[in-house]
Amino acid sequence: MKSINVAILGFGTVGRGTFKVLLENEKLIEARCGFKVNVKKILDINPYAIKSSGLPKRMFTSNIKDILDDPSIQIVAEVMGGIEPASTYMLKALNAKKHVVSSNKAALAENISQLKEAAKKNKVELMYEASVCGAIPVLSAIKGNLAANKFTEIRGIVNGTSNYILTQMTENGMRYEAALALAQEHGFAEADPTADVEGIDAANKICLLADLAMGYYRKPSAIKRVGISGITDQDIKDAVEKDCKIKLIAKAKLGKNGIVLSVKPELIKKDDILYNVDYEFNGITLKTDCADDVFFYGRGAGSVPTGSAVSGDIISIAKIINAKPAEKSPAKKK
Amino acid sequence: MKSINVAILGFGTVGRGTFKVLLENEKLIEARCGFKVNVKKILDINPYAIKSSGLPKRMFTSNIKDILDDPSIQIVAEVMGGIEPASTYMLKALNAKKHVVSSNKAALAENISQLKEAAKKNKVELMYEASVCGAIPVLSAIKGNLAANKFTEIRGIVNGTSNYILTQMTENGMRYEAALALAQEHGFAEADPTADVEGIDAANKICLLADLAMGYYRKPSAIKRVGISGITDQDIKDAVEKDCKIKLIAKAKLGKNGIVLSVKPELIKKDDILYNVDYEFNGITLKTDCADDVFFYGRGAGSVPTGSAVSGDIISIAKIINAKPAEKSPAKKK
Repeated sequence: MKSINVAILGFGTVGRGTFKVLLENEKLIEARCGFKVNVKKILDINPYAIKSSGLPKRMFTSNIKDILDDPSIQIVAEVMGGIEPASTYMLKALNAKKHVVSSNKAALAENISQLKEAAKKNKVELMYEASVCGAIPVLSAIKGNLAANKFTEIRGIVNGTSNYILTQMTENGMRYEAALALAQEHGFAEADPTADVEGIDAANKICLLADLAMGYYRKPSAIKRVGISGITDQDIKDAVEKDCKIKLIAKAKLGKNGIVLSVKPELIKKDDILYNVDYEFNGITLKTDCADDVFFYGRGAGSVPTGSAVSGDIISIAKIINAKPAEKSPAKKK
Repeated sequence: MKSINVAILGFGTVGRGTFKVLLENEKLIEARCGFKVNVKKILDINPYAIKSSGLPKRMFTSNIKDILDDPSIQIVAEVMGGIEPASTYMLKALNAKKHVVSSNKAALAENISQLKEAAKKNKVELMYEASVCGAIPVLSAIKGNLAANKFTEIRGIVNGTSNYILTQMTENGMRYEAALALAQEHGFAEADPTADVEGIDAANKICLLADLAMGYYRKPSAIKRVGISGITDQDIKDAVEKDCKIKLIAKAKLGKNGIVLSVKPELIKKDDILYNVDYEFNGITLKTDCADDVFFYGRGAGSVPTGSAVSGDIISIAKIINAKPAEKSPAKKK
């Protein structure tokens, strides 16, 4: 069996999830993509993460050069989060002719044009399914079987943390602060929840969606964005009285004056398909000219679900490599 | 711009939809796959279909040999329906080293093993997204970004006709016969509705899903199947009284004793994600070991939505051809 070597950048929640998926479903993945997927190197500087992993020390490095300079590593999975140094590492990996997979919406949304250009120039793949709605294969659908369609609107609940908080406020009468604390307790919100509750995370995702589906790119900082931290229990009560729920909606809409991107809390009616997307779940509707509306629902976050999406991209790249004649494969290059 | 030649077998509902999608979104498709997708030949024996199409007569043929023997045709889209001669035509096309796309669940479900083997032997693609849930990209998700997962259950409303009838009975108090007549009037049911209302169509689809996702194949005739023609208005009333709806559920479930496939009417509770899949729509849930549950919803039938799925497969194949070095492309073979 041929094997393909992967490096994982960042051994946090997503990195560990990816490692777990690749290991647990090793045989099944081999059968499906024709390659043994082998994690050769992990970049992390946290000694606790390294020690608690139980993995041999030699698998870890704190120097990106150990990965970039290793010609046997064909795929780099960047799952470290944050704009830098992640963006620079991705660019360097692409320029070193390595395929890149990423779950890092902040880095991707900020630098997607530059990253796509580097991938194109170096004739390698850049895939980032895990960065938008975690385990839900929405980017693959846009690039894949829906590729014959014009996308006229993308509309979704793409941030699990804020959706969890709003659901707790709506269903269980909690106040914002208490719901946030509960989300943090359950691991659905980080200690600093700003990116989630202020719609920054959702803005990153809608930017990536609009870029991919509509060929329209704007920096996340340039889009209209309102978070949920100002939502009061009175707002929630008013919504329920109108038979509605308040949801944080990310939207890219093609109108008369072009495409408009927005992230803001909206009143969602009972007959709206997004009405039943509750708690930490994500849901997204693509409006198209030929396939009509297509809706996707699932887990937008979490270690193993997101790791499943990262692994899915790794498998897709392995299949592409497998389909090419052996002498053209980067694995054989020196 | 390079071009790729396609032949369409059957110029009925799906054939015309496919032609329309490829034509209307020609520029967009070119930009996305790097090929001008050109419909070179259409197989049909119906003089009315040919005349009413308004297309030049030379585009049509009633002889499959005109397509099989044309080395410039790289992709055959079989959208004629029925087990034969469709299965034979697909096999012949694969053996002539042409890629095959199909929307024909009856032919595929009956002969999928033989067809897959022929595709493998001839190193060509066999894609059939349109055959299961029309415009919903569920097969692509299984093969694509969810490929790192073990699928433990597939459960869905995969037949729009029977779902439309059951919804009319539930929402509007219609009796079975009246609802069927209305479905026929709206074009959601054929003159002979047997395949839809007796669960034959759903059985074909669950067989294809189980084969692809679970590597488990059974002939459609071998699976447990109950249709909806025996559902009375009393059954519907009883369901509503229990806060449920009756839905025709196709299921593939991995249990202690292996995989069991079934198609039968089931009581669906309000908190079930399939509860709100009404009228002619389809919905399907994939239970996985890593991504957890992923749900898809959209149009399972219709000329243009299904044509969008056929076109999506054509684009995917064009991309695969494009990724390979030119000298290896079938287009250049003699």
